[in-house]
Amino acid sequence: MRVDVYPTVINIPPAEELAGKAAVAIDVLRATSTIITALGNGADTVVPVLQPEEAFAVAADNPERQFVLGGERKSLLIPGFHYGNSPLEYTESRVGGRPVLFTTTNGTRAIRRAAGADEVYIAAFLNAPAVAKALLALGKDVAICCAGTHDQFSLEDTGCAGAILHYMSGPDSHLELNDMGYVARELFRTYEGRVADILHTSEHGQSLLKLGLQEDLLFCAQLGTTTLLPRFVEGQVLR
Amino acid sequence: MRVDVYPTVINIPPAEELAGKAAVAIDVLRATSTIITALGNGADTVVPVLQPEEAFAVAADNPERQFVLGGERKSLLIPGFHYGNSPLEYTESRVGGRPVLFTTTNGTRAIRRAAGADEVYIAAFLNAPAVAKALLALGKDVAICCAGTHDQFSLEDTGCAGAILHYMSGPDSHLELNDMGYVARELFRTYEGRVADILHTSEHGQSLLKLGLQEDLLFCAQLGTTTLLPRFVEGQVLR
Repeated sequence: MRVDVYPTVINIPPAEELAGKAAVAIDVLRATSTIITALGNGADTVVPVLQPEEAFAVAADNPERQFVLGGERKSLLIPGFHYGNSPLEYTESRVGGRPVLFTTTNGTRAIRRAAGADEVYIAAFLNAPAVAKALLALGKDVAICCAGTHDQFSLEDTGCAGAILHYMSGPDSHLELNDMGYVARELFRTYEGRVADILHTSEHGQSLLKLGLQEDLLFCAQLGTTTLLPRFVEGQVLR
Repeated sequence: MRVDVYPTVINIPPAEELAGKAAVAIDVLRATSTIITALGNGADTVVPVLQPEEAFAVAADNPERQFVLGGERKSLLIPGFHYGNSPLEYTESRVGGRPVLFTTTNGTRAIRRAAGADEVYIAAFLNAPAVAKALLALGKDVAICCAGTHDQFSLEDTGCAGAILHYMSGPDSHLELNDMGYVARELFRTYEGRVADILHTSEHGQSLLKLGLQEDLLFCAQLGTTTLLPRFVEGQVLR
């Protein structure tokens, strides 16, 4: 079973190379952590869109659906949106039973680029062990697509890819890894039991700390708190 | 002093973001190892070109210069070229005093992309300690540009970036690293004293071993055998 890890959106191969595989999209800080949390708190669906304008247009065209508008630009709330990109904002009382239109800088692009694969799972540390288990059960080759930050390698996304590889590894699983996968797994193991340290060390984590978002970091650093396996299907993320 | 490591050619930022910095281009297996070796063995200059056709054209237009044609496609000798991409081919008797036209898949692209910086050093494990010392003396911010393999992260190039960072690190050097730099330095330190293991573990190393190129791997794994600091200046690499 071959597993390739891609460190940023631009390193993800074209759709034809993903066909036949399972893909995993990761943007730990904070898009995929937030999507998983929103769905866990009862959101009906999360629709990733590339631009805020697209979110406004879809919401205006479908007023009966009562879309929640969420996401960020430069880590901050988008004017006119209900919520930002903090998983802590997506509580049951706010998103339960409602669809969410969601746009973030890196995460949305990663999810869309991964969509050439047969299945696309949405992963973060929150559900990494469950994603690993599902991938092993599926048995297909895997493309782990890290969002990265502005097309640069990010410690937290690659660390999460490494977590998935760690939980996939065992005496019965014969994993063939690319070089990035090999380094990702070593990275996670170096920090085992200290996921919060990965997030605090990372450049993106540091920039969120400067914005006072320490609680978001600690929330996103939780490992395996849910077995939810959100999948991106026909333009939306479903439970 | 800020040092950013870029894992592949497509992750290298555009020229305007490199202006004012020093850049380092790395393609351990085998382009930069070979360029350093050719210059160390007395080659007059190495001119990186993107396509074999360009090499043939330049050689035909300048017969008096007696260009040596070197490089590879898919790790093999290019038909009509004198030598391939093995550093062992570039002996003093073959290249001493002659200019070399050189084309390789990943290395040439990395060197050209790095050229937006004020200075571009050519590095491999062979001269990594000397490059680190030169960068510290220069004092500018640094962009370490790994070639990678077909736009994917490669263990050997990032490991070499890590070697340079390791030798730059010390009580008096205050390095600010990006996430890739942080991981690169850890990677090198994990393998300290065992550079050959990095090359043997890497996917590219494995593919070269299958072609019987074990000696090339061992040659390229030598750490700090030369203090040569080749620089890419106006289209050519000079000693």
